[in-house]
Amino acid sequence: MERTLTSEVPGKVGEEVELQGWLHWRRNLGGIQFILLRDRSGIVQVVLPGGLKLPLPESAVRVRGVVVQNDKAPGGYEVQAEDLEVLQPSQQPTPVEIPKEEWRANPETLLTYRYVTLRGEKARAPLKIQSALVRGFRKYLDSQGFTEIFTPKLVRAGAEGGANLFEVDYFGESAYLAQSPQLYKQIMVGVYERVYEVAPVWRAEEHATSRHLNEYLSLDVEMGFIDSDEDVMALEEELVRAMLEETAQTAGPELALLEVEMPKLPREIPRVPYAEAKRIVKEELGLGMGADLNDEAERALGAYFAEKYGTDFVFIVQYPESVRPFYTYPTGDGLTRGYDLLFRGLEITSGGQRIHDPDVIVQQLEKKGMDPQRFRDYIEVFKYGMPPHGGFAIGAERFTQKLIGLPNVRYARAFPRDRHRLEP
Amino acid sequence: MERTLTSEVPGKVGEEVELQGWLHWRRNLGGIQFILLRDRSGIVQVVLPGGLKLPLPESAVRVRGVVVQNDKAPGGYEVQAEDLEVLQPSQQPTPVEIPKEEWRANPETLLTYRYVTLRGEKARAPLKIQSALVRGFRKYLDSQGFTEIFTPKLVRAGAEGGANLFEVDYFGESAYLAQSPQLYKQIMVGVYERVYEVAPVWRAEEHATSRHLNEYLSLDVEMGFIDSDEDVMALEEELVRAMLEETAQTAGPELALLEVEMPKLPREIPRVPYAEAKRIVKEELGLGMGADLNDEAERALGAYFAEKYGTDFVFIVQYPESVRPFYTYPTGDGLTRGYDLLFRGLEITSGGQRIHDPDVIVQQLEKKGMDPQRFRDYIEVFKYGMPPHGGFAIGAERFTQKLIGLPNVRYARAFPRDRHRLEP
Repeated sequence: MERTLTSEVPGKVGEEVELQGWLHWRRNLGGIQFILLRDRSGIVQVVLPGGLKLPLPESAVRVRGVVVQNDKAPGGYEVQAEDLEVLQPSQQPTPVEIPKEEWRANPETLLTYRYVTLRGEKARAPLKIQSALVRGFRKYLDSQGFTEIFTPKLVRAGAEGGANLFEVDYFGESAYLAQSPQLYKQIMVGVYERVYEVAPVWRAEEHATSRHLNEYLSLDVEMGFIDSDEDVMALEEELVRAMLEETAQTAGPELALLEVEMPKLPREIPRVPYAEAKRIVKEELGLGMGADLNDEAERALGAYFAEKYGTDFVFIVQYPESVRPFYTYPTGDGLTRGYDLLFRGLEITSGGQRIHDPDVIVQQLEKKGMDPQRFRDYIEVFKYGMPPHGGFAIGAERFTQKLIGLPNVRYARAFPRDRHRLEP
Repeated sequence: MERTLTSEVPGKVGEEVELQGWLHWRRNLGGIQFILLRDRSGIVQVVLPGGLKLPLPESAVRVRGVVVQNDKAPGGYEVQAEDLEVLQPSQQPTPVEIPKEEWRANPETLLTYRYVTLRGEKARAPLKIQSALVRGFRKYLDSQGFTEIFTPKLVRAGAEGGANLFEVDYFGESAYLAQSPQLYKQIMVGVYERVYEVAPVWRAEEHATSRHLNEYLSLDVEMGFIDSDEDVMALEEELVRAMLEETAQTAGPELALLEVEMPKLPREIPRVPYAEAKRIVKEELGLGMGADLNDEAERALGAYFAEKYGTDFVFIVQYPESVRPFYTYPTGDGLTRGYDLLFRGLEITSGGQRIHDPDVIVQQLEKKGMDPQRFRDYIEVFKYGMPPHGGFAIGAERFTQKLIGLPNVRYARAFPRDRHRLEP
């Protein structure tokens, strides 16, 4: 007999169906008992004889029964069955009750048992939404002539100079885990002009905040033959729109379950010069700040623009050279064509135009007090006619976190890694 | 003026167009000179006045001119222009001539300069084909109810017991680079039933052969609620078909350029029991072999089945326990539900049904002389009702290599890593 998914049950009233899934919840009323059966598509109520001995919750099971409309059942339908086959019993109670809406357990405990807590409907939904965002990312870029690339994650040195790298023992030599595919995606602009990559990156940052991960998914884009960073932002604008549309279309149940409020994304995302953002933070919001916009300033700016311009997204543009990496295109006035994209007050993207002239790279390295000799290999790449180009990276987990409103970015990753967590 | 791609030139005869790309090749005939301009879509001839001073090949350039039909021009069309704008000059001659069909340089030299040699049409085509294979992989699985997952690459221990792992210094602790997402994709079957992942994996294998890489792209699949490994193979069969179809549809020019012969893929790929494969190797092909099928035996089997059954793909099934990982589903007769998929005589997939009962996992570990205590965390995962499940991994570079007929798997990776190579 062919399997029916729980989501298909409403279309089969009066028919006999076979369901497979997990025993999500059970209740014995004596003469009759109810279970909720969960599969990848949802949950349905199954009615069983009272005398039947049921396995522990989370057992993998199969039932055959007849679909009946019942307004009292969750979702309005139930399956009436005589028996239940245990495919594989759960051998012990779960560390938290999977059907519970909110778990009161310590967040660290939830992460420790994530291999089973992820089964909860509200725990699995964020990652499903993330997969839709990523699908939207690729789909849009595929439609715009981009080529997907797969660049090395084991590298000899970091693109940004070497801080915050995890060291790897590579046959007795020192290698590092790539912080970003920066150099490689720039090289690939010379090959395919427009490229993207979806891959993990690593930052050996000691601090643990609600927005940092030591291993995360970077959605990288780089494009050649641009006029300025404006071309890059214009692409990102449409890309973000396409990602949200794909998610709305293909992750509807998950968005509804988590009561996600879809973002306010105007036709054109405001571009706010860095200096103006600083002024607003100081004069209009009355906040102090350091050299760069700090977390508090970003949050306040997010709220300010949502209120004032009805947008959840803001580009902060024209960053000063002092707070951008050496390869950022300088405009000669101490500023750059580097930008950030804030989403609901969190930086989810750093991007901009890059320097394509190797002589300017040397000049900028020297200006920052970095030794061009150490960047010899990087500079060499630019000696073969690199066109004006730029790009950006979107942190997949941060985007997911802010879209859903998760308290911590860790819940936007299946098995997060942080200073103290290498398992599961 | 809007940019025209070289591939769009034939549709614009008589029109003025603007092209951007690289100076691929140049030739001065005195009163007139020809260049080939290369962009992401192809190559077109541009005719320029003889007196114009041209930059070095590989310079990034822009030209405006009129499209003319000319049977003597490559592709039958050319652009007649008066001037050429240099967006960024190449500062030195390329290490090999990019337009050359075959480079005579040492393969190691070609890899050392890969950041520029990749620009060659025949060098960049394999990776474009690979991106189409990967797109076909995701597209088909998306259509079959699979969820894309992103699992950790930094792990505490290896899934297979610990050999061939690269060690990482994780804040002073030992971590390892994942050899495969095996355990994680099994966990995720408990969450989404059907999952896939496209991500790098690492093997610290010292030997350097034409089919090994220390860092490669693994196309992983895992699915729950199966009856046996037959369900897994049936899926892989259709998946491989879909990957090849997507490639034929979207990478036509690259397949033609490399003169790729599309594989013979029968409606049903033959399933050959391991014992029968061994018999054929020994009795019909007259080859010696060790405990497992070695490279030579796999190559000979590939040729044998191509000749005899007109297929480029063969499943070798019912592998003995002794040559499969501990988590492979045993059938009680010393054999397993583990299989390999050979493509043109090369193993491109290892797959099969996995054990879903934790007690059987313990039994199999002990049988192999492995200590179940060391696999405590792995076993724990299976205590919460894991349904019968199975899956496989396709090595993206090997599939690409064999599809195209590349002499070495390194050319199916942008920046390969091997025992002696960490750069570029």
